Amino acid sequence: MRIALAQLNTVVGDLPGNAALIETAVADAKSAGAALVLVPELAITGYPPEDLLLKEHLLAAARAELDGIASRTHGIVAIVGFPERDDDVYNSAAVLADGKVQAVYRKLRLPNYGVFDELRYFQSGTTPMIIVVDGVTVGLSICEDIWMPGAPATPEALAGARLIVNISASPFHAGKAAAREQMIAQRARDNLAAIAFCALVGGQDELVFDGSSVVVDHTGAAVARAPQFEPALLVCDVDTDAAGSARLRDTRPRLATRGERPLVEHGGSFVTGAPVPAAGTRAQEGTVAERPPAVQEVYEALVLGTRDYVQKNGFQHVVLGLSGGVDSTLVLLIAVDALGADRVSVAVMPSRHSTEGTQGDARRLAANLGVQCLDLPIHDPMAAYDELLAGVFTGRDPDLTEENLQARIRGNLLMALSNKFGWMVLTTGNKSEMSVGYSTLYGDSAGGFAVIKDVPKTLVYELTAWRRARDASDPVPDSIVSRPPSAELRPEQKDSDSLPPYELLDPILQGYVEHDLGPEALFARGHDAD
Amino acid sequence: MRIALAQLNTVVGDLPGNAALIETAVADAKSAGAALVLVPELAITGYPPEDLLLKEHLLAAARAELDGIASRTHGIVAIVGFPERDDDVYNSAAVLADGKVQAVYRKLRLPNYGVFDELRYFQSGTTPMIIVVDGVTVGLSICEDIWMPGAPATPEALAGARLIVNISASPFHAGKAAAREQMIAQRARDNLAAIAFCALVGGQDELVFDGSSVVVDHTGAAVARAPQFEPALLVCDVDTDAAGSARLRDTRPRLATRGERPLVEHGGSFVTGAPVPAAGTRAQEGTVAERPPAVQEVYEALVLGTRDYVQKNGFQHVVLGLSGGVDSTLVLLIAVDALGADRVSVAVMPSRHSTEGTQGDARRLAANLGVQCLDLPIHDPMAAYDELLAGVFTGRDPDLTEENLQARIRGNLLMALSNKFGWMVLTTGNKSEMSVGYSTLYGDSAGGFAVIKDVPKTLVYELTAWRRARDASDPVPDSIVSRPPSAELRPEQKDSDSLPPYELLDPILQGYVEHDLGPEALFARGHDAD
Repeated sequence: MRIALAQLNTVVGDLPGNAALIETAVADAKSAGAALVLVPELAITGYPPEDLLLKEHLLAAARAELDGIASRTHGIVAIVGFPERDDDVYNSAAVLADGKVQAVYRKLRLPNYGVFDELRYFQSGTTPMIIVVDGVTVGLSICEDIWMPGAPATPEALAGARLIVNISASPFHAGKAAAREQMIAQRARDNLAAIAFCALVGGQDELVFDGSSVVVDHTGAAVARAPQFEPALLVCDVDTDAAGSARLRDTRPRLATRGERPLVEHGGSFVTGAPVPAAGTRAQEGTVAERPPAVQEVYEALVLGTRDYVQKNGFQHVVLGLSGGVDSTLVLLIAVDALGADRVSVAVMPSRHSTEGTQGDARRLAANLGVQCLDLPIHDPMAAYDELLAGVFTGRDPDLTEENLQARIRGNLLMALSNKFGWMVLTTGNKSEMSVGYSTLYGDSAGGFAVIKDVPKTLVYELTAWRRARDASDPVPDSIVSRPPSAELRPEQKDSDSLPPYELLDPILQGYVEHDLGPEALFARGHDAD
Repeated sequence: MRIALAQLNTVVGDLPGNAALIETAVADAKSAGAALVLVPELAITGYPPEDLLLKEHLLAAARAELDGIASRTHGIVAIVGFPERDDDVYNSAAVLADGKVQAVYRKLRLPNYGVFDELRYFQSGTTPMIIVVDGVTVGLSICEDIWMPGAPATPEALAGARLIVNISASPFHAGKAAAREQMIAQRARDNLAAIAFCALVGGQDELVFDGSSVVVDHTGAAVARAPQFEPALLVCDVDTDAAGSARLRDTRPRLATRGERPLVEHGGSFVTGAPVPAAGTRAQEGTVAERPPAVQEVYEALVLGTRDYVQKNGFQHVVLGLSGGVDSTLVLLIAVDALGADRVSVAVMPSRHSTEGTQGDARRLAANLGVQCLDLPIHDPMAAYDELLAGVFTGRDPDLTEENLQARIRGNLLMALSNKFGWMVLTTGNKSEMSVGYSTLYGDSAGGFAVIKDVPKTLVYELTAWRRARDASDPVPDSIVSRPPSAELRPEQKDSDSLPPYELLDPILQGYVEHDLGPEALFARGHDAD
């Protein structure tokens, strides 16, 4: 059977836009000869719709869009994710065929951890479901359904499904794509079924969905794999006879589940008239995409997250403060890759503590990348604040107050550019400094999107090095990465005056923030109590 | 039986401090002759502990504090809320008696809506539990357990419980206390059991817990009620024989649940040696607190929320910008009531658009309340920004940019005072203007605590009027409330230039924000489509 996986980039709340994407994908899949096309989880609303799901009018509008898509579905079966308003609300997959909604599968397993809140919004389904498409039995599942062994995939396979389809919205973290595909391969082997995993792609607020849709055969081998971080319509041929034959020889799934066969609903049989793929074809040429190396994967996630945050919020242009340090350098590189140099401006905003070296580096970098560079020295506003506050601050030495004021003047200037020209401000703080509070509220943290908020400082250097080596010409002056990190908010300031070296700090933060370790557990892992 | 309800004000994460509060309450309850003392849900960690519950070291420390409290529990039974780390994590109530943890009840119903996220952290318990204290059978329950009919209270009552205890952390909203007590009274009547509801009190981040602990008899009548918005040890005598006798006459609960009696665990029998209360006493004198009128209730919630946010975060003093408008006036009144005039400073920060009237009103109000008033006119910093940006902004008219810059200068000045003197900045935005975005990011929205963020503008006027009438002398100049609302960021500006009148806007916001209504539903309720 030829199937198509629509790896779509939806926008939360843009129901007509998402429906149009889906309709195009269904039409293209049909043109490509697919009998079955998959569309990601909750594709009609985008994911995660969060409190939009509390609005009856949103749920009604989603159903209207689904019916519209269904009416255009002839000669192909489409599985489309949508929020289903019935006695309660379900995270559902509609089976669209012959012009209407033929059946609805309801997600059994609702994740409620990490970034997921599905138990706040949905009732769980109770019954696995199979459908028959051109004589092939297909089992349905939605995202989390496949992440734990058992139902619905196992009862569906036992009920005859040779192909399990999973429509998904699975957020990226570093290394996620490989781990996910390993899990899918194991589910295929455990159930002796091919699995088609169709995933959302795109940045949505603080999440990045990496796509990486994949089809594996019943041995877990990848038959087809979509590219990461970009939309795609992945079309491939699945040999569903092979899974059936394998079960005659390997009876372990049958034996393992003897006596535990839950009810499986039959969602209907459909004939699409799609041509049977020629014998011996297993995938379209070139559809098993290579997976990028780890650092590149993170860089591309940051580019996609930035591009989509800016564009989905209706901005055309971004601005950031360029200090000549490595953090703002990396953010600028990402912004230029995301939007193009003509949609990025930088402001160089020296204070009396800024050195010639950093300012020069900032201007050279901007010139090398071809972005607009604005010069806004902050001496005069700073003097005005100092004078105004002199009376109130009589007898007090300069301290963090004056350091923060400099950062806040810069924040004000960037926001003034944002207000006047409609640009979005990108902030440049990294995860290490934000984790320990080494930043200024309403200062360097002011802006619309924090590009490297989840990137520790040591990874900032790795990403910058990878990006510098990527192209034939390197736009980054060496001194930007070789100079010791400094906020330049007082004379001769260095990050290391206030913080441990980042090589020591980052593993401690990873233990404390990512793994929730307490002091004793951190000491046991060799971190110095001091 | 004499019982005590410890309406405590805990601090999330301050385990030793919370344990000390609990130990004092247990000792005081014993001194008052109580056989049983109740302590709120998760009192050892404070509520809501959120991601602290992902830390093994926190869970271990909570258990150590519980064991410490247990070791001091003799001659009284204490029911104490704590997070229980076993095969999984449970939201539990420990039964402490004779120096140790005697039994543990696990919350059956985990709320996961609104402000609650308990399904992210806890496994549910499976079994209702009764204990026997001085011969009286007592059923245990935790917060949400009592908000739906049925288990655990109903099986506990059927298993002989004459008193159902509920330890709770129930956040306040306007009108909540009355609705909650009505619900408790109905549960008492439905189960023919007295109910002792022991609640947390205090502000915790964005929540306010109002206390309002109450004991009702089996007819739903309030036997004792703690004051709202302040800590208390509520001691009262409960006639548990009455509930037993009533069940001989009224057999509806027995008939209604015939054949549906789930397993009830018996947590043990304890003899405390507490004296039997004298016949005919039903409550200590004066322990049925009056409930305040609706506007006063909201005002007091705001005072408590502000005081606790400031103090629990380690601040001694607050500062706010005083404009002479009604919002900052109300915030100042609340701050002075929460902390005292000597712990509140205000800054009057006129721009060229500020009128003599509003500035004079602001200074007069500050003087009437006896708070420190700093004069920080923003003309010079504004001129410095205008001059610096003149080149970049050539050919552009003044617009929102310059309005926002004024608000951001004020934000910077308040944050500079915060940095220099360690004061917390209170922001003064109301819910109406924040809902429609009529405020400045990093400007008037900059600060540590947004006192009236959940108060619509029309309620701002009501609260101010109530507070003005409260005392013999009224500190508020009339012109503050009679002048039409204005942000004073451009000449002759009025809120009504940009927004509908608040009398029209507030009901629309309530429908859209609080009730998730769409446009059609709002029109159907009579709101004008324009």
